[in-house]
Amino acid sequence: MGYAIDLADIESAAVRIRTLAHETPVITSSFVDGLTSKRVFFKCEIFQKGGAFKFRGACNAVFSLPEDQACKGVIAHSSGNHAGALALAAKLRGIPCTVITPQGTPKCKLDAIRGYNAHVMECAPTMDAREAMCAAEQKRTGAIFVPPYNAAEIMAGQGTIAPEFLRQVSEPLDALVVPVSGGGMISGIAVAAKRLQPGIKIYAAEPRGNNDAADVKAAKDAGDLVPMARPNTIADGLQGRLGDLTWPIVRDLVDGVIAISDQDILAAMRICFERMKVVVEPSGAAGLAAMLTPQFRLLPHARVGVILCGGNVDLDALWPLIEAKIPI
Amino acid sequence: MGYAIDLADIESAAVRIRTLAHETPVITSSFVDGLTSKRVFFKCEIFQKGGAFKFRGACNAVFSLPEDQACKGVIAHSSGNHAGALALAAKLRGIPCTVITPQGTPKCKLDAIRGYNAHVMECAPTMDAREAMCAAEQKRTGAIFVPPYNAAEIMAGQGTIAPEFLRQVSEPLDALVVPVSGGGMISGIAVAAKRLQPGIKIYAAEPRGNNDAADVKAAKDAGDLVPMARPNTIADGLQGRLGDLTWPIVRDLVDGVIAISDQDILAAMRICFERMKVVVEPSGAAGLAAMLTPQFRLLPHARVGVILCGGNVDLDALWPLIEAKIPI
Repeated sequence: MGYAIDLADIESAAVRIRTLAHETPVITSSFVDGLTSKRVFFKCEIFQKGGAFKFRGACNAVFSLPEDQACKGVIAHSSGNHAGALALAAKLRGIPCTVITPQGTPKCKLDAIRGYNAHVMECAPTMDAREAMCAAEQKRTGAIFVPPYNAAEIMAGQGTIAPEFLRQVSEPLDALVVPVSGGGMISGIAVAAKRLQPGIKIYAAEPRGNNDAADVKAAKDAGDLVPMARPNTIADGLQGRLGDLTWPIVRDLVDGVIAISDQDILAAMRICFERMKVVVEPSGAAGLAAMLTPQFRLLPHARVGVILCGGNVDLDALWPLIEAKIPI
Repeated sequence: MGYAIDLADIESAAVRIRTLAHETPVITSSFVDGLTSKRVFFKCEIFQKGGAFKFRGACNAVFSLPEDQACKGVIAHSSGNHAGALALAAKLRGIPCTVITPQGTPKCKLDAIRGYNAHVMECAPTMDAREAMCAAEQKRTGAIFVPPYNAAEIMAGQGTIAPEFLRQVSEPLDALVVPVSGGGMISGIAVAAKRLQPGIKIYAAEPRGNNDAADVKAAKDAGDLVPMARPNTIADGLQGRLGDLTWPIVRDLVDGVIAISDQDILAAMRICFERMKVVVEPSGAAGLAAMLTPQFRLLPHARVGVILCGGNVDLDALWPLIEAKIPI
């Protein structure tokens, strides 16, 4: 097969991060069950350290480094949850961490990154500027670059969700619905879940954005990577593109892609807040949004697992509005 | 002792509701641990059926009824979570339920009550009007009145939180912080927790409101019930007054009362949303608010359990604001 990771890598990762990452709870909602006529289990990575599944991968990557490399520190460029996750993992290992963030990164995420003692460097909000500054800084300090998804340690760490989830649910699941961006989480989950339970189906939930840029769906349909713009979507955590390590696994082991609109995501977010009592960011609600589409509801799967992958909503702008509406 | 309930009642209730109510998860937050320099465990009754701990008591009350009484149905007057909880319990038992709700009850709560097939009757928004309509309807139909807290079955059902919580946390807790209103939940919890773990301390979190109407604190200080207005507070679920069954337990088994302001509650709610990724209503955040007061932080308890007791926030007014702030 020749994939970047196999089940053994994921099991090693699970051992490596066991005392560092949370075993996140699984919740159910009779409201969602009624809405879908399925039995749905939600894996709450919103309660993971750093508020998202990203910590599993970053933690596995940081703690996989041999001591002579680790001591030079780690570096990444990220506008989101990867930076926070890496900063937290580096803090736990006690090594330096530098993060290049594009201008416009939400203050709550910057605060979290700085709260984990990382050195934050701001750059222009383009991928070229991020990569250039990151390369220069890496050269200067010798820090190890940790990519957000297209790396074996990241994929294996994020894949630890699957054995944990399948163990937590008493009876086998028929399908898993996983938000997809660069494909790190879904490829790790697919490799583990299909080995542990060969009949399980894996569906990717992909925002098409208002520029209709669902590249995973296009790639699966074409059988090859299709160059495409990043989706312009509220799901700011899902704007990555498949990489050379994640794509072969997505190609072979993902059974279907559900493209969703931003309206679908907002409706799913509201259900999360109002009925399930959990705070999810738009990317985090993508799995539920996919599950609520007519396309998915027609599928025969009776027991479905959904990953609620991130909960880092920027409340700086929202909270004053919420307070104003609470009659104090 | 002569209390309305003892541990055996709570254990019987736990058996009775075991397959009907959720065993709710316990979560932790390194942010809150850092803020308080304590190890804090949150019991998430926000994930209970109906979105609040109330279902435990209502379910125990409804399923304790002998068949000849149950068939006549149940009735309550309530503006909040008790009505929804009772309606759901009645639906599960397959018996009629009537709920008298005061004008002004949030639409989300009315929708939930109706969603559980209860018959909703609206009355003027005063306690006299509620009681009068409830008594008349009860007389007409023979339905069994289920009070919100001052009843042994309710107290025992709500008390099932304690054995479940203490079992879920690997090492003993030094203290529990429990929001208080009519005292049903805290009296049930206190009876169970102090029998199971005699050294544990129980603290009540009580909103004083902007009319400084903290009656539990006043009663504990005076050693007797003190007539007092209902607190005018955003914690609309915590406006009950102690009853003749709950007071003796609160008097003897609650070790301290922390009176909190609405500002304390709002700050705690924000931490719940932003750092812990859970949606709590103001009443639900009262326990965390109490724990963050200087008064509580000076206490020597290293391991503290807090009940996040309800998550039924009315999003009808809020959601359009949230959507407007998400750049779609």
